[in-house]
Amino acid sequence: MQAEIITIGDELLIGQVVDTNSAFMAQRLNRLGIKLKQISSVHDDEKHITKAIDEAFERADIVLATGGLGPTKDDITKLTLCRYFNTCLVPDNNVKQHILSLYSERPDVLNRLTETQWQVPQSAEILENRVGSAPIMAFVIQRNNKTQWLISMPGVPYEMEIAMTEQVEPYLLRQLNSIGLTTGNIIHKTALVSGIPESSLAIVLEQFEDNLPQNLHLAYLPKDGTIRLRLSGYDIDETIVETKFRELCNLVKEWLVLREDKPLEVAVGEKLKSLGLTISTAESCTGGRLAALLNAHSGSSAFYKGSVVAYDNNVKHNLLGVSEETLNTVGAVSEQTVRQMAEGVRRLLGTDYAIATSGIAGPTGGTADKPIGTVWMAWATPEQTYAECFHLGKLRDQITARACTRALIKLCKILHI
Amino acid sequence: MQAEIITIGDELLIGQVVDTNSAFMAQRLNRLGIKLKQISSVHDDEKHITKAIDEAFERADIVLATGGLGPTKDDITKLTLCRYFNTCLVPDNNVKQHILSLYSERPDVLNRLTETQWQVPQSAEILENRVGSAPIMAFVIQRNNKTQWLISMPGVPYEMEIAMTEQVEPYLLRQLNSIGLTTGNIIHKTALVSGIPESSLAIVLEQFEDNLPQNLHLAYLPKDGTIRLRLSGYDIDETIVETKFRELCNLVKEWLVLREDKPLEVAVGEKLKSLGLTISTAESCTGGRLAALLNAHSGSSAFYKGSVVAYDNNVKHNLLGVSEETLNTVGAVSEQTVRQMAEGVRRLLGTDYAIATSGIAGPTGGTADKPIGTVWMAWATPEQTYAECFHLGKLRDQITARACTRALIKLCKILHI
Repeated sequence: MQAEIITIGDELLIGQVVDTNSAFMAQRLNRLGIKLKQISSVHDDEKHITKAIDEAFERADIVLATGGLGPTKDDITKLTLCRYFNTCLVPDNNVKQHILSLYSERPDVLNRLTETQWQVPQSAEILENRVGSAPIMAFVIQRNNKTQWLISMPGVPYEMEIAMTEQVEPYLLRQLNSIGLTTGNIIHKTALVSGIPESSLAIVLEQFEDNLPQNLHLAYLPKDGTIRLRLSGYDIDETIVETKFRELCNLVKEWLVLREDKPLEVAVGEKLKSLGLTISTAESCTGGRLAALLNAHSGSSAFYKGSVVAYDNNVKHNLLGVSEETLNTVGAVSEQTVRQMAEGVRRLLGTDYAIATSGIAGPTGGTADKPIGTVWMAWATPEQTYAECFHLGKLRDQITARACTRALIKLCKILHI
Repeated sequence: MQAEIITIGDELLIGQVVDTNSAFMAQRLNRLGIKLKQISSVHDDEKHITKAIDEAFERADIVLATGGLGPTKDDITKLTLCRYFNTCLVPDNNVKQHILSLYSERPDVLNRLTETQWQVPQSAEILENRVGSAPIMAFVIQRNNKTQWLISMPGVPYEMEIAMTEQVEPYLLRQLNSIGLTTGNIIHKTALVSGIPESSLAIVLEQFEDNLPQNLHLAYLPKDGTIRLRLSGYDIDETIVETKFRELCNLVKEWLVLREDKPLEVAVGEKLKSLGLTISTAESCTGGRLAALLNAHSGSSAFYKGSVVAYDNNVKHNLLGVSEETLNTVGAVSEQTVRQMAEGVRRLLGTDYAIATSGIAGPTGGTADKPIGTVWMAWATPEQTYAECFHLGKLRDQITARACTRALIKLCKILHI
C-alpha cells in the first residue's frame, strides 16, 4: 500500500512558505505502515492540480492533499475536486452546525464567505475538522479493479495535524480494513553520532552495510554537526532489525550520542526530570535559542528554571558576575567568560546544572584570533565546570544551531545518557 | 521560462527531514524572473529519479535537483544523472585540488570515499562548491528544438544556499543570455495585516480583487494570527503593481501592520536601531523564543541587550522583582505579574523598551479561569507600561509562536512603524 502527498498553494512555489505539512504526514503514514512514494507541490490552478492527482494515482492508491480550502478566491481545491470526481456541492447541516458553534463567540467571522464552507462535495465523506471551518473531504473511487482514495485537508499546519491524527488515520485504517487490506510493516531505528566525518563513518560501516539483508537499508543524515544513522526495514522481522541495530550501535560506540530518534533536548530533559535535577542557561551568541529548545516540550518546568540572555557585556558583568577584568583582557568570547557565565547563572537561579555560550555568530565581528564561528561554551555542574571551544562554520543561523547541538551533546555525556 | 525543483532523499519521504531547500530556491528563482511550476520530492531510487526528471522536463526547461550527492552508499544522484545524460565519470583535477585544500586541516576526512567526490560526469559543467566536497553539476541538452538544463546541488541547506546564490544563478543568467533568452518580470508586494478574520477581509477586498488586471493576483496567507496579503504581478508594469498595492494598503489600513514582506522582528529591529533605542525581554511562556527572534538577524547587538527567561516563579521574584504577594494572589499569569516583569527587566538591563510574557502554553496547567492559550503580555516604555491578555489557541508551539507575533505587532504600534 503506497501513498502520495500533494500540497497545493502558490505560496509554496514562490518560496513564501516552507512546506512542513509533508514531513508530518509522511511520519504518520510511516507509523501506519504506509510507504510514501512522492510529494508534489503545485499551484492553485485547476489543470495543474488535476494533472498532479492523475500522476499520483498512477503510482499510489492513497493521495493526501493539503491546502486551497480557505474561503477566499485564491483557494480552489474544493471546486477542483468536485469536477475531478464528477460531483457537485451540497450544503451539509452537520458542518454548518459545527461552524456555527465554532464561531459562537466570534459572530464577526460569520458572513457569506464562511457560509461557503458548509457547502461540500456530494460524493465525499466529510470528516470533522475540530479546530477549523474547512471541511476534510474523503473521496473513494474504483479504477482498474482497484480502490483508490483521495483525502483533502486544510493547509494550516495545526489544523492539518489534528485532522490527520484524529480523523484521517482512523478513516484510512477503517477503509483498508473494510476491503480486507492490511498495511505493511515499516520499522525505522535511528542512532545519533557526532565527532566523525560522514565519509570516515561510511568506511567504518562498509562491511556492516554490505551484509545487511535486502529489505534493511542504512541511511546517513548529517545535520548541525551530527549524523543520524537510520536503519529502515520493510516487511521484516522486528528482531532482525533490533539485532542489526545493536550491531550498528556497537560499531559506532565511540561517537554514539543517542540510540533513539529523539531531539537531544528531549533526551536531556527526560534524564534531568528522572533525576530530579534542574538546569539554567546563560546565553550570549545563542541568544535564547538554547532556552527555547529546552522548554519547547511539555513538562519542561520540572527541570528548566530559567535563563539569562546576556547579549550585552554589561549584562554579563552586572547580572552574571563576569569580572570586568576578564571582559577587558581576554574578551567576551573566552574560556574565562563562559566559565564565569555558567557558574554565575547556576548560582543566580539556584540550579544543579548550567550551560553558557559566547561566540562570534557573524556576519561581522570576526578577527584573526577569533574568526566567525568561534564559540566558547561552559557546563557548570555540582562537581566542576567544563569548558570547550568550537569552530562551527560561517553562517549565523548555522553557528547558533550547531552551538545548541554541541551544548546538548556535552550535557548528554555529563549526564551519562 | 519555467523551472521545476526535484528534491531527492528517502529522509524527506519518511518525514525525518523538512524540505526547507525548495522554498529557498523558489524565492531565488522568482527574483530572477523564473516561475516555478512544481516541486517534487522523490526517493533515492534511480528509476524514480529518472521518471521525475522526465516529468519535470515535460513542464519546464530548467530543473534544479538537490540531494543524494554524499559519499555514502545511499546517495545515488550522480550515477543516476550519468546514466540519464548518457555520460561517464571522469576525475576532475580542479575539484580534486579544491577538496584537498578544503580538508587541508582535517586529513582524517580524506579517504577513498572522499576521492569519489572528484569523479564527475564528463558532459557536465562543474560549478564550484565553495564550502563542501560534493560537485555542483550543470547538464545542458537539446530536445524538441529546445535547450533544457538540469543543475544538481548538494542537499545540505547551507551548501545549497551558497551554491544557488554564488554559482547557479549567475550560471543560469549566462546560459539564458547566450541563447538570447530573457527571463520574465515577476513582482510580489506583500502587506501584513492582523485583527480581522480571513473571510471578513475577503469581503472587504472583494471589489478590489474583482477589478484587478488579469496578470495581477491577490493571495491570502494566514499564519500565527496574522494574514499576509500578497499581490503578484507577472510581466506587468511595476507602476501598476505599486498603484494597486497602495490601494490595497488603504483598504486594509485599519488592520495594517507592515507594508513589506519582512519578518516582524526585522522591522522592529531596524526601527529601534534607527532611533538608537534598546530592548530587552522577560519571558515565561515564550521561554527565550522572543529573545532568539530578536537576535536572529545580523546587527541585533545594536538594539538588543538581553533577556531574563523567568520560567520559574522564584526567578520572576528574585531576579525581576515580581512581588510575592502578586504571585500568591493573582498568580504568574496575570496583568500585575507581566507589568512587574516588563518593568523589572527594563530596569535590570537598563533598556528603553522591554516586553514580558506569561501564559499557559499547555498541554497541562489550564484552569477554567485561565484555560490553555491564555497569555498576558506587557510592554514597558520610557513613558508607560501597556498590558494585554490574549487567547492564542490550544497547541504549545502555536501558542508561543503567536505570543511572539503579538508581542512584536504591539511593539510596531508603539514604535509607530
